[in-house]
Amino acid sequence: MNWDFHDFLPADGGVCAADGFTAGGIRCGIRPNHTKYDLAMIYSDCECTAAAVYTQNKVFGAPIQVTRAHLSSGQARAVIVNSGNANTGNPDGVEKAEAMCRLAAEQLHISPDQVIVASTGVIGQVLAIEPIADHIGELAAKLSKDGGADAAAAIMTTDTRKKEIAVRFRLGGKECVIGGMAKGSGMIHPNMATMLCFLTTDAAISAEMLDKALHMANEKSFNMVSIDGDTSTNDMVCIMASGCAGNSRIETENEDFATFTGALFAVMRNLAKMVAADGEGATKLIECTVSHAPSEKIAKDVAKSVITSSLVKTAIFGADANWGRILCAIGYAEGNFDIHKIDIRLASKTKNVLVCKNGVGVDFSEEQANIILWGDEVKILVDMRDGECEATAWGCDLTYDYVKINGDYRT
Amino acid sequence: MNWDFHDFLPADGGVCAADGFTAGGIRCGIRPNHTKYDLAMIYSDCECTAAAVYTQNKVFGAPIQVTRAHLSSGQARAVIVNSGNANTGNPDGVEKAEAMCRLAAEQLHISPDQVIVASTGVIGQVLAIEPIADHIGELAAKLSKDGGADAAAAIMTTDTRKKEIAVRFRLGGKECVIGGMAKGSGMIHPNMATMLCFLTTDAAISAEMLDKALHMANEKSFNMVSIDGDTSTNDMVCIMASGCAGNSRIETENEDFATFTGALFAVMRNLAKMVAADGEGATKLIECTVSHAPSEKIAKDVAKSVITSSLVKTAIFGADANWGRILCAIGYAEGNFDIHKIDIRLASKTKNVLVCKNGVGVDFSEEQANIILWGDEVKILVDMRDGECEATAWGCDLTYDYVKINGDYRT
Repeated sequence: MNWDFHDFLPADGGVCAADGFTAGGIRCGIRPNHTKYDLAMIYSDCECTAAAVYTQNKVFGAPIQVTRAHLSSGQARAVIVNSGNANTGNPDGVEKAEAMCRLAAEQLHISPDQVIVASTGVIGQVLAIEPIADHIGELAAKLSKDGGADAAAAIMTTDTRKKEIAVRFRLGGKECVIGGMAKGSGMIHPNMATMLCFLTTDAAISAEMLDKALHMANEKSFNMVSIDGDTSTNDMVCIMASGCAGNSRIETENEDFATFTGALFAVMRNLAKMVAADGEGATKLIECTVSHAPSEKIAKDVAKSVITSSLVKTAIFGADANWGRILCAIGYAEGNFDIHKIDIRLASKTKNVLVCKNGVGVDFSEEQANIILWGDEVKILVDMRDGECEATAWGCDLTYDYVKINGDYRT
Repeated sequence: MNWDFHDFLPADGGVCAADGFTAGGIRCGIRPNHTKYDLAMIYSDCECTAAAVYTQNKVFGAPIQVTRAHLSSGQARAVIVNSGNANTGNPDGVEKAEAMCRLAAEQLHISPDQVIVASTGVIGQVLAIEPIADHIGELAAKLSKDGGADAAAAIMTTDTRKKEIAVRFRLGGKECVIGGMAKGSGMIHPNMATMLCFLTTDAAISAEMLDKALHMANEKSFNMVSIDGDTSTNDMVCIMASGCAGNSRIETENEDFATFTGALFAVMRNLAKMVAADGEGATKLIECTVSHAPSEKIAKDVAKSVITSSLVKTAIFGADANWGRILCAIGYAEGNFDIHKIDIRLASKTKNVLVCKNGVGVDFSEEQANIILWGDEVKILVDMRDGECEATAWGCDLTYDYVKINGDYRT
């Protein structure tokens, strides 16, 4: 699938864009001295099928454990999520995560096991439930069709921008919407990066097909993003499908399933790019597309190897057309392939410069390369000339500010 | 094997410490505007058995290709190595590497295929052979028992310190010596990090046993070092054994072999630690020791995962006792193990502080942790309490200067 966002019509409202959903965000005071919003809720008027993908880290947060149990039914009706404390690495984590679900459920008159719970922020510090208990009523009262932006703000940590998007598409003549919000890798001392994404749709789709679509789209979107190679303990991408659009319910991998998955992929890919571009300290989005690879696994491994290389990331920060570092990063990707067939181009949206042909450097215009490298989005095109598979991965440059955000709390 | 340097007697002279070896270093002018030494030679009076290990990168430099061919005989008598240009990624790389061997061989009256060749520095720029041809006579004339330090200086790129060491030990009543020099990950625009290590010994040992000992010792020394996760194209560790010590030649895995390998490991581990401590921009050596692991592979993977985590590295730069990041990095290491058994301690040479017990944070003195974290050497002790295997890996902190060296050539 190679749909891009422009294949679908944009819609407003983020997680509230789809029929049946309201949302809201408030400051409840998880971290007493911080003024930002820190508690978000998403609610569906009616029953939803639901699915999620979780961090692969063997250390996972209590909210992951609780959400996984709740979603075993394939159903959910609400999301409660806080920033400022990851509720991870504490003895009472599960108890607190369950309390969050219970508090939300009481307000919404649903069952606690219909609630998805997530947390992001400080690890290893006990989560105070009181601020949440004290303000959950206020949050529930604030739920509205206009609340998507507040919810997107409430899940931010050191993200510098809200990340929300929605698209419209048609299934069997019925207009459907998928919307979503995400937060990226942000760090607050002594904190841990977490990637969270909450998606909503009014399409009618079985829990099984929803799970399949989510995994397929995730594989080529969030799973292809790396900020610094560290996999968080609390990463989660989840989706609720209300069915309010009235389309013929997707129960098999039919044409509607393909359309739905394409739209979902467009939403997730755009959110993934937003997460990469807003990585800690980032000044540039790096996109590496590998084409003509002998297998999809090799295409993915090569693309990820390039965008996670510290040497590539610092070179791009410095606008240095150091193609040797790109070739080097390709060279230590897994799999058997021929380095002597590889061409590398640096590219922007409008131009590209060939810097390496058949695995060997070629003369190129440093000036043209510099114009590309000073842009906000730097594309690295790797043509393996050895097959038909391709993959794209997203990352960001490695900057002084990354070190500052993550290391230097003394100033 | 767990020998440490203190189990062997130190010796002076680096690569010249062993009987039969002389060395030297000069400036020949590989990079016209640089004043540092850039060409080194090591020579043995007599025939040597020899062995090497090379980068695993599918992109490898021309010198690697030529050295591998020359060492297929298991013999060598000299090393020629330049800094300032990696002789990699150019169409004429092999030709130039062979020319370097020929030039050295002519001076030393040996065969070109008895020469080990290495290069480190700029990638993708044609190596000018003229400076080497013009000064090779001067270098050969300068070879002496006191030349180890000059040779160690000549292989440096942005290393801030020379790295050399030697140890004495006995094999069957005969005193033997192993000496060595190394360069670490240094970067000169537009350059690529390379780790090189040249070892010499006067012990008598067959090429086959030498190769085995080198691989065994390398596995637990240089292979356990990571500066930034990027595997260079030109990494090489090689050893020449002159046999001048007159010991009974090691032909099997006997007791002498164990002693020899232990001494070699001590030398290589100390050089590896020097390389880690002098990583680009580093202010601190990070040593992670994993004990009581269910398998050696898991022990190694966990130790490497911790020392390569950007979040751990920046936290240690900032002297932040952020144990959650360590646990997180352990959690995404490969293999099946129980995170709930893991204890983590931060340690210096004289004290240690328990920060995590059974995978959960414990109360600890931030003050005591800070004293450890402000030291030059920070040890992270991971007790998996699930077996008898262990491993140690070395890295360094991630600092502003790493970004500066690798990204910012504008100031």
